[in-house]
Amino acid sequence: MSLASGAFEPTRLRVRYAETDQMGRAHHMHYLAWFELGRTDLLRAAGVAYSKIEQEGVKLPVSHVEIEYRGPVRYDELVDVYTRVSGVRSRTVTFTYLAVRAETGDELAAGSTRLVCTDDKGKPRRIPPHLIDVLESLKANAHAWPES
Amino acid sequence: MSLASGAFEPTRLRVRYAETDQMGRAHHMHYLAWFELGRTDLLRAAGVAYSKIEQEGVKLPVSHVEIEYRGPVRYDELVDVYTRVSGVRSRTVTFTYLAVRAETGDELAAGSTRLVCTDDKGKPRRIPPHLIDVLESLKANAHAWPES
Amino acid sequence: MSLASGAFEPTRLRVRYAETDQMGRAHHMHYLAWFELGRTDLLRAAGVAYSKIEQEGVKLPVSHVEIEYRGPVRYDELVDVYTRVSGVRSRTVTFTYLAVRAETGDELAAGSTRLVCTDDKGKPRRIPPHLIDVLESLKANAHAWPES
Amino acid sequence: MSLASGAFEPTRLRVRYAETDQMGRAHHMHYLAWFELGRTDLLRAAGVAYSKIEQEGVKLPVSHVEIEYRGPVRYDELVDVYTRVSGVRSRTVTFTYLAVRAETGDELAAGSTRLVCTDDKGKPRRIPPHLIDVLESLKANAHAWPES
Repeated sequence: MSLASGAFEPTRLRVRYAETDQMGRAHHMHYLAWFELGRTDLLRAAGVAYSKIEQEGVKLPVSHVEIEYRGPVRYDELVDVYTRVSGVRSRTVTFTYLAVRAETGDELAAGSTRLVCTDDKGKPRRIPPHLIDVLESLKANAHAWPES
Repeated sequence: MSLASGAFEPTRLRVRYAETDQMGRAHHMHYLAWFELGRTDLLRAAGVAYSKIEQEGVKLPVSHVEIEYRGPVRYDELVDVYTRVSGVRSRTVTFTYLAVRAETGDELAAGSTRLVCTDDKGKPRRIPPHLIDVLESLKANAHAWPES
Repeated sequence: MSLASGAFEPTRLRVRYAETDQMGRAHHMHYLAWFELGRTDLLRAAGVAYSKIEQEGVKLPVSHVEIEYRGPVRYDELVDVYTRVSGVRSRTVTFTYLAVRAETGDELAAGSTRLVCTDDKGKPRRIPPHLIDVLESLKANAHAWPES
Repeated sequence: MSLASGAFEPTRLRVRYAETDQMGRAHHMHYLAWFELGRTDLLRAAGVAYSKIEQEGVKLPVSHVEIEYRGPVRYDELVDVYTRVSGVRSRTVTFTYLAVRAETGDELAAGSTRLVCTDDKGKPRRIPPHLIDVLESLKANAHAWPES
């Protein structure tokens, strides 16, 4: 991912057997784990390791999620998760996601998660300035979704 | 649960160790599994086994979810999930949920899931009349949330 | 559970939709979460809250597991997990489990997990004396499995 | 992976945040999902899509698992899962696994899973001849583990 160009690579994953349910599709709860991979990868591409953030006493628990499911995805299919920063405030950041079937480009789900910044004890605090800068930069350079 | 009285029992569960994450709280994705328990129990209390519905070729995959998280819940804590039917249409049904810490009554999360009716092949279809009747009855008798 | 009598209650759980896979049965990995519930409940019945143990800086990560699966279990079925302490050493404790279908008593799986005692940093340490006493007592009073 | 040379690529995965527990490590149950990825990839490299096998009415549920955990692995670390076929019989196949920390080569876990062949109804049946051939070939060409 290049912040300058706005180009970026989605997070690619393969649907695990353990993620399917008896309807024969990935159970809807796993999309939240996939989106989490997407934002970890987006931050990593911008030079920020979320694991490091936590070691510095900054936690980012999820305070709101919304997902619209547009079609099923099955075991062993490849999924691309596109992620961008859509909102940055002093204490919260919002990521939005688009999951598509890698082979066909079909949209599987669109969603968002809002994260709130806390200290080690779970008390709300401001997002550290260096992280705000990265998030603002990601937001400013947010790419269009692939289908646009 | 009595449909006549509107009284009902929440679904009680205990946070599993396997559901915690390194922040020391239940990971946000598991709430979707808990809500699923809530609606299964609500339907069962109304005389409908979801496992039977599926055997009759009617599937109810989730098409939309939204969750607002209001506070963390930790390993081994008891959670009560209150569930009600908030919307019924010919092809979709919406459930809303309130999760509270059983010991204190603190609100942990509020959410909703919309389910769409399909046949065995995943093709949209109308919800069967007998199920519509049950859902409408649940909606009409929907209780207030505990703290109201 | 009474330590004196050796009588005990199994942990009862209901198979979650989210635990099924596309074979239409509970995926084999979830049994490890169920066994974890079993040992938490066994310890609780003996007056020991595992959550408290951890707060005192004693961790019990799993170092070995073995499970023999004897038959499938399906969505919404009730499962009883019987748990006992089968081995206690200065630094490890072994629990064994039998999971049965509650309605019929059919054996679903038998298994064991060995836990190793560590401090907060993950360094091996002796199991605290008060915990050894409880574990030894549980072992001495271990019940026969239900079918014996 | 080349069957001729015995060389092969492990399955690489990154520990998900959703897979951690409050001990700050990947919860032990997820290794079973990782091993499942390992055997899916091994079969795919040998030209067999497990998803196709199932569509032909052949199921391979897990009948036995054993895992020895040798050290913790943390969020965001890369894991390599090496997989081989260690036993083939008319109705069962056994895979063995070695999970290592990709960056250091440290062994994280060694394990095995035995799968039993059934038809669509869950009734035991023989493994189809073409699949037996592939499994026998994988067994004959099984590589040494990386550290050997």
